[in-house]
Amino acid sequence: MIRIAIFGFGTVGRGVAEVLLSKKDELKKILGEFRVVAIADSKSSIYGDFDLREAIEYKIRNGRLPKDDRAADLFDIESFDLLIETTPTNVLNGEPGLGYIREALKRGINVVTSNKGPLVVAFKELKELAEKRGVRLGYEATVGGAMPVIKLVKKDLAGNRVIKILGILNGTCNYILSRMESEKIGYDQAIQEAQQLGIAEADPSYDVDGIDAAAKLVIIANSLLGLNSRLEDVEITGIKEITPEAFEVALEKGFTIRLIAEADEDGKLEVAPRLVKLTNPLAIYGTLNALLVKADLAKEVFVIGRGAGKYETASAIISDVIDIYAR
Amino acid sequence: MIRIAIFGFGTVGRGVAEVLLSKKDELKKILGEFRVVAIADSKSSIYGDFDLREAIEYKIRNGRLPKDDRAADLFDIESFDLLIETTPTNVLNGEPGLGYIREALKRGINVVTSNKGPLVVAFKELKELAEKRGVRLGYEATVGGAMPVIKLVKKDLAGNRVIKILGILNGTCNYILSRMESEKIGYDQAIQEAQQLGIAEADPSYDVDGIDAAAKLVIIANSLLGLNSRLEDVEITGIKEITPEAFEVALEKGFTIRLIAEADEDGKLEVAPRLVKLTNPLAIYGTLNALLVKADLAKEVFVIGRGAGKYETASAIISDVIDIYAR
Repeated sequence: MIRIAIFGFGTVGRGVAEVLLSKKDELKKILGEFRVVAIADSKSSIYGDFDLREAIEYKIRNGRLPKDDRAADLFDIESFDLLIETTPTNVLNGEPGLGYIREALKRGINVVTSNKGPLVVAFKELKELAEKRGVRLGYEATVGGAMPVIKLVKKDLAGNRVIKILGILNGTCNYILSRMESEKIGYDQAIQEAQQLGIAEADPSYDVDGIDAAAKLVIIANSLLGLNSRLEDVEITGIKEITPEAFEVALEKGFTIRLIAEADEDGKLEVAPRLVKLTNPLAIYGTLNALLVKADLAKEVFVIGRGAGKYETASAIISDVIDIYAR
Repeated sequence: MIRIAIFGFGTVGRGVAEVLLSKKDELKKILGEFRVVAIADSKSSIYGDFDLREAIEYKIRNGRLPKDDRAADLFDIESFDLLIETTPTNVLNGEPGLGYIREALKRGINVVTSNKGPLVVAFKELKELAEKRGVRLGYEATVGGAMPVIKLVKKDLAGNRVIKILGILNGTCNYILSRMESEKIGYDQAIQEAQQLGIAEADPSYDVDGIDAAAKLVIIANSLLGLNSRLEDVEITGIKEITPEAFEVALEKGFTIRLIAEADEDGKLEVAPRLVKLTNPLAIYGTLNALLVKADLAKEVFVIGRGAGKYETASAIISDVIDIYAR
């Protein structure tokens, strides 16, 4: 019996819980018996003998869970084998997720997370801690949502030496640039439209300044290129300065402009708008994410998928859980 | 110690042997000790205590290997744990690979193959045989070369229900159609050019009539959609009838034409030229292959890569070997 705790019960945490319910029978065939024994959000929790569907409904109805115990307390209240950590991202100090993940790994609990912060801040520490304790840390959901990145390189391309990784890692930026290209509008109009559609935040700087893409790039570089890099190591240029005229000139020559994150084996780390040939598979449209892996045997593999979304992120989390527990 | 036999020692078999040599140290860290103990091509072999590099050179120099024993005899001459099967494809009867794979699985030997034939003809039989004998059958290399297909769905998208798979599975056709699009030339001129470049065979019918794509589709459908289909179940239309005028009309409306293979969970199996929007990630150019997986959680994931080539195919084979043996 796999006893699961879910820390963070917003859209992503609830998405995972819903999938565990809706796919219960198929997942039991793959994983064996499992049960969610504890859930915590930032101010409340539920644990012990409870009904998962009722917990989801309680949270939606009340904006919280029934008990007052905090996530950090649950380690001593309830015992569990797997922590699914989906608390909000803080790329500067990694908290609160970093503390939870560290504590879980120390106690010999497997962790699957969708939270970039802890991995941006402390990738090496957490990987080494997991190894030392003989447990697993899954983080496919931190980079590119449902788009496979970590498993793509570690499993599908196993045996390859990765030379370089280029990616479009922020759907908001890609949406804005796609619209500037196809509608021939300016940045201001495109960001406004994205905000109205809920694709960009009221304060969009975390996305449009390239921070989010850079955070994902750090995780990719550290886990797939063996670097030990930090957010400060990434040379970042955002998309705010791109003009309709730049698109005009680019398109005339058969190119478009996309925000490209690049990491190579020599330690180069860069996020910047770049010309991309219209026939290049990286010339994607809308909120999609994309990745190009250059490797010695496979030469180049592109993958494109949805970088965010409730069930899309759950997809990555569930694939990690299966990777750890599949019998 | 993993004792490896390689059956089929053309480009692909030698590519694998070269990678086993050039990446020996890295692979030993992942797999533990391994050694190639037997190699056979269609008329000759080498086994026992031999040097792998010398065997490759002998084959290139002499067009054969030093001993007269045939592949089928090696099962009784030499004992091995893993068969890497890279003999030529025959999609009608699967031979000679089918006999080798069946014999290996019966004897409890793991198999990794790049050979479509045996899987097109006898997928279900071989999968059940492997299961019954508690051994593994890896076949990533049979569909899309270095482009991840099987692992993409089984590992990266584990937990997803696959609804539909669409793919560009033949690089020769895609090259011809790309050239017809970009150079505004006819089929005859494009195929001639492809033949001169060695991209198309002297008799290109296996590719341009859609048989190769259909064979790969059968493997994809059977392994990823749980069907039990045969080549005869695929409705196939090739690319020979496509005119420059068709491209002209398509391009005016923002579309191109590509040979699309489609399989869905209801058993639909089709290979046919289709309109593809120019902004769709499936609108790829040159000899690339592409796949679109529609799944319940991840929604849509595209992957694009090289569908053929010595080291590209070796990449898929090595990733299967690692999947079976990684410690």
